Amino acid sequence: MTSSKSRATRRPSPRHSIKSVGLILKWGQHEAVSLAKDLSAWLRAQKIEVLAEEDVGSLLEATALDKSEIAARADLIVVLGGDGTLLSIARLLDSRETPILGINLGGLGFLTQATIGEARDSVARVLSGDYEVDRRITLEAVVKRAPRHHPASEVFTAVNDFVIAKRALGRMMELEVAADRKPFCSYRADGLIIATPTGSTAYALSAGGPIVYPTLEATLLAPICPHTLSNRPVVLPDSLEIEVRVTGSDHESLLTADGQESAHLALDDLVTIRKGRSAVALVRSSHAYFEIWRNKLRWG
Amino acid sequence: MTSSKSRATRRPSPRHSIKSVGLILKWGQHEAVSLAKDLSAWLRAQKIEVLAEEDVGSLLEATALDKSEIAARADLIVVLGGDGTLLSIARLLDSRETPILGINLGGLGFLTQATIGEARDSVARVLSGDYEVDRRITLEAVVKRAPRHHPASEVFTAVNDFVIAKRALGRMMELEVAADRKPFCSYRADGLIIATPTGSTAYALSAGGPIVYPTLEATLLAPICPHTLSNRPVVLPDSLEIEVRVTGSDHESLLTADGQESAHLALDDLVTIRKGRSAVALVRSSHAYFEIWRNKLRWG
Amino acid sequence: MTSSKSRATRRPSPRHSIKSVGLILKWGQHEAVSLAKDLSAWLRAQKIEVLAEEDVGSLLEATALDKSEIAARADLIVVLGGDGTLLSIARLLDSRETPILGINLGGLGFLTQATIGEARDSVARVLSGDYEVDRRITLEAVVKRAPRHHPASEVFTAVNDFVIAKRALGRMMELEVAADRKPFCSYRADGLIIATPTGSTAYALSAGGPIVYPTLEATLLAPICPHTLSNRPVVLPDSLEIEVRVTGSDHESLLTADGQESAHLALDDLVTIRKGRSAVALVRSSHAYFEIWRNKLRWG
Amino acid sequence: MTSSKSRATRRPSPRHSIKSVGLILKWGQHEAVSLAKDLSAWLRAQKIEVLAEEDVGSLLEATALDKSEIAARADLIVVLGGDGTLLSIARLLDSRETPILGINLGGLGFLTQATIGEARDSVARVLSGDYEVDRRITLEAVVKRAPRHHPASEVFTAVNDFVIAKRALGRMMELEVAADRKPFCSYRADGLIIATPTGSTAYALSAGGPIVYPTLEATLLAPICPHTLSNRPVVLPDSLEIEVRVTGSDHESLLTADGQESAHLALDDLVTIRKGRSAVALVRSSHAYFEIWRNKLRWG
Repeated sequence: MTSSKSRATRRPSPRHSIKSVGLILKWGQHEAVSLAKDLSAWLRAQKIEVLAEEDVGSLLEATALDKSEIAARADLIVVLGGDGTLLSIARLLDSRETPILGINLGGLGFLTQATIGEARDSVARVLSGDYEVDRRITLEAVVKRAPRHHPASEVFTAVNDFVIAKRALGRMMELEVAADRKPFCSYRADGLIIATPTGSTAYALSAGGPIVYPTLEATLLAPICPHTLSNRPVVLPDSLEIEVRVTGSDHESLLTADGQESAHLALDDLVTIRKGRSAVALVRSSHAYFEIWRNKLRWG
Repeated sequence: MTSSKSRATRRPSPRHSIKSVGLILKWGQHEAVSLAKDLSAWLRAQKIEVLAEEDVGSLLEATALDKSEIAARADLIVVLGGDGTLLSIARLLDSRETPILGINLGGLGFLTQATIGEARDSVARVLSGDYEVDRRITLEAVVKRAPRHHPASEVFTAVNDFVIAKRALGRMMELEVAADRKPFCSYRADGLIIATPTGSTAYALSAGGPIVYPTLEATLLAPICPHTLSNRPVVLPDSLEIEVRVTGSDHESLLTADGQESAHLALDDLVTIRKGRSAVALVRSSHAYFEIWRNKLRWG
Repeated sequence: MTSSKSRATRRPSPRHSIKSVGLILKWGQHEAVSLAKDLSAWLRAQKIEVLAEEDVGSLLEATALDKSEIAARADLIVVLGGDGTLLSIARLLDSRETPILGINLGGLGFLTQATIGEARDSVARVLSGDYEVDRRITLEAVVKRAPRHHPASEVFTAVNDFVIAKRALGRMMELEVAADRKPFCSYRADGLIIATPTGSTAYALSAGGPIVYPTLEATLLAPICPHTLSNRPVVLPDSLEIEVRVTGSDHESLLTADGQESAHLALDDLVTIRKGRSAVALVRSSHAYFEIWRNKLRWG
Repeated sequence: MTSSKSRATRRPSPRHSIKSVGLILKWGQHEAVSLAKDLSAWLRAQKIEVLAEEDVGSLLEATALDKSEIAARADLIVVLGGDGTLLSIARLLDSRETPILGINLGGLGFLTQATIGEARDSVARVLSGDYEVDRRITLEAVVKRAPRHHPASEVFTAVNDFVIAKRALGRMMELEVAADRKPFCSYRADGLIIATPTGSTAYALSAGGPIVYPTLEATLLAPICPHTLSNRPVVLPDSLEIEVRVTGSDHESLLTADGQESAHLALDDLVTIRKGRSAVALVRSSHAYFEIWRNKLRWG
């Protein structure tokens, strides 16, 4: 076993038994509901409490909670949906590093690595302790408002990526980026993606970024449509702290986490992005990364 | 002389004498004002009427008008600024194909091809009839609202490009594109750029598009951050009519012309883009296209 | 019908009846042979002479000739193979613009646009005169040796592309390119692709080039791994004459036509590339270009 | 100091005094010779032995040796030239990790990070022990011949990259790549670059690869002109062992190290690439990586 693996995978201790399972369903997806009913019945038959969101709680005969309560209480999260569904709950998990098992409803996802057919067996394996998790690093962004604004700072988490982009019409923005307090680059671009290795196969790939192995201790910076053609994507150690400041624009910008949550940025607001304190614990599937890449990117 | 040139360049008839010159200045630019004063005095000394926008009209001892009136009346437009300044007036010129001479205030532009040092001589050459123009094709977009909306259609003109993109947060949109009524491609992307050859060195270049020779009778389609990596930029004959429909999204989209004017698009609104009826008549500088490319793109 | 189409498609005159058909088979391909036998028998039954290469001539009960004799004599060429097989015969056709019908043995090709199942019907349609052809422009390269070498010049033809690249180890070459005798660009790169629109979906696409509509009157220049990142692919009018000179290298280079034929280039040899005098007359299939692109590039 | 830095930089022990300096000059470069004479005189005045190659040994009043002897004996290597000159000696240094100081004769290099003006001071700092080194990882390639060939295996070292590419005409090759014995990808391409982070700013950048921070524990795989457009560059942990096999081609291929050394590959020969056992110890300049990137890639 290589050193990079030993840091990134973990076999959970046998004593850590699972007493409650959160089922997170993609909204409005029929297959999700019927599969979730099966899983719920089967889990309850084994005296395991099932937690679900309020809209499907009674349908699944589960304890109805909101997402953040599920994140706080469940010993295992099972996602039935796509990568987006998994991201929406993963960002809420804190330092507990609750294992997440993703069941993809249409083939395979980069994060939801089990198929519908593999759902029951995968859950059973986790309950019996016979599984490994991939610790996927997260990113944390702290937004510090320019002095003229209110002093409070806000904190965001991302599993895939943060995107800093223009909110409207004018299509170019200027960004000053520093790494570990040293000037790095001034971008004129549509925006900037700061991605984890996990996020390298998401939005950053469309912006011309490379594929980064999930356990590499790296952060990917990929500018979106940069004006300077030599502004190529950059892979930095995840130990570097990235600071981004929107300059030279009178338009409003947005910081977006995983394409799902966002905050407005004004001129000279400072966004500091660093490795998150906790990771996302993805239950490993039998599908190797390479197999998923070949499949999803149609390398065949 | 090749056939593509004969269609694209034109030596104006000697009888077409220039009686009024519109001076269009980049807003808030000091060099522009001082250069414009010189030019204005020199033009008036030759009994040529000078037209200028209201904010600088009296300063330049010129007839003060708004931009569209200048576009309607001037026999020659002289732009003092950058490519953006030139675009803002070029889109207002109709079928008159008034010659435009662009003086770039900082080096060279793709469209503003004369330097400050060449300004006076360039204007003099045009007044004496000793010049050629490049006829740069334009694009015209007609927005036809989905039946559920009001029936009116709106028309836009672009010299560089039209961009159809998401207005907010959610970062992927779906677009159905047809060419001459035949299905062309369904894009999942941040947006789509439909550019003239002139626009190929503007935004489309940042999105991965090729450089297209200005007189080629072509339209460039360049998706912005497409999800499908084989969705490469496409160069089509400009005789094809491009239809774009935003599908599969509940978010609002924008149609933007030359990065300056925009209209909201709703689901199923249809945008039809075709070659404009008139062209923009750029006064040719002594700088060949290739020289400008080498200079602007730092090919040296 | 648009003007670009009228130049590029042609309905053959009804009097031009087809008396001999050349069958060109992909070497060593079983399906090709059995399909060719069927076609040959059916053609002979209609008193049409069948021409084939010597290795399969007797097997097909055809007149055995070499490829260039078939190119010189056949009234119709039917290719059974892939795009490479079609290119190998297309480059030999001179000013006669003999129609070529390409049957692809595995799905669809960019040039071999009929499937095996469509073979018989497609041939029958051509024999009855009920067909259109796409006139795909070719490129012609003249190699003029540096004065210190022998004075003879050599001429090559390409349907897809010419590639000028290093022959060996050292991985960068320097190329001076001019267009219509004006300096265009100095490349430091692995090589340079000069492609027709037809060739834009072949090698040039892998080198980062755009897709160019087959009938556009354009030539595509795509550098291979250029040192200067802003050396992007360029689309020029096909009326421009491109001159390429290998400079600053003590290594041998190669000029390759359609990846099939090649000539050595020495320092300061001059390659002049212009539009070929005749075109390749591809029989139009029922599959539109867009359909083929979607299929071959997996845009679905 | 971050953890990734602590692994990658090293302050040499004060007792490790430098008794001999190897001067490696770019061949045929006048500035190199005159600067080398100065340095040599100055070093000899301090009783430090100067080692140089045979062609310049007497000119520099230095001990004349061949490159590999200099590599074996010198306590410090000073390169006067460009990155290529530095690579040529760096590949010869074994486990001694002799510090290398690169003086660039024309501006700045990615590896030769001191300017001519900084030469004397930089050497003085190293002699006094007041310096840090960057430990740049190397790659090692073992070529194992297909059984039908002779059984010997050969070993190569690269500081920037290994390139596996076709030797001649036919422009596509097929490569089977595995990582840690698991199938990774089958490429159809012009070739494949396997680069260190240091090499990411060399050839791999021209092939579309990202910029990788020099101390990241990563290996970059960048296919050259891949047929499948989704075959994007991949960044893997450098702990993975990469195996490459040339398949499906009857043409000869080449394995090239740093663009300077090469070996022929035949069908089914197996190339195994792993992290080298020793690193290259570059003397750190006052120019940060980011500054060099901005400068060399003209990000300004």
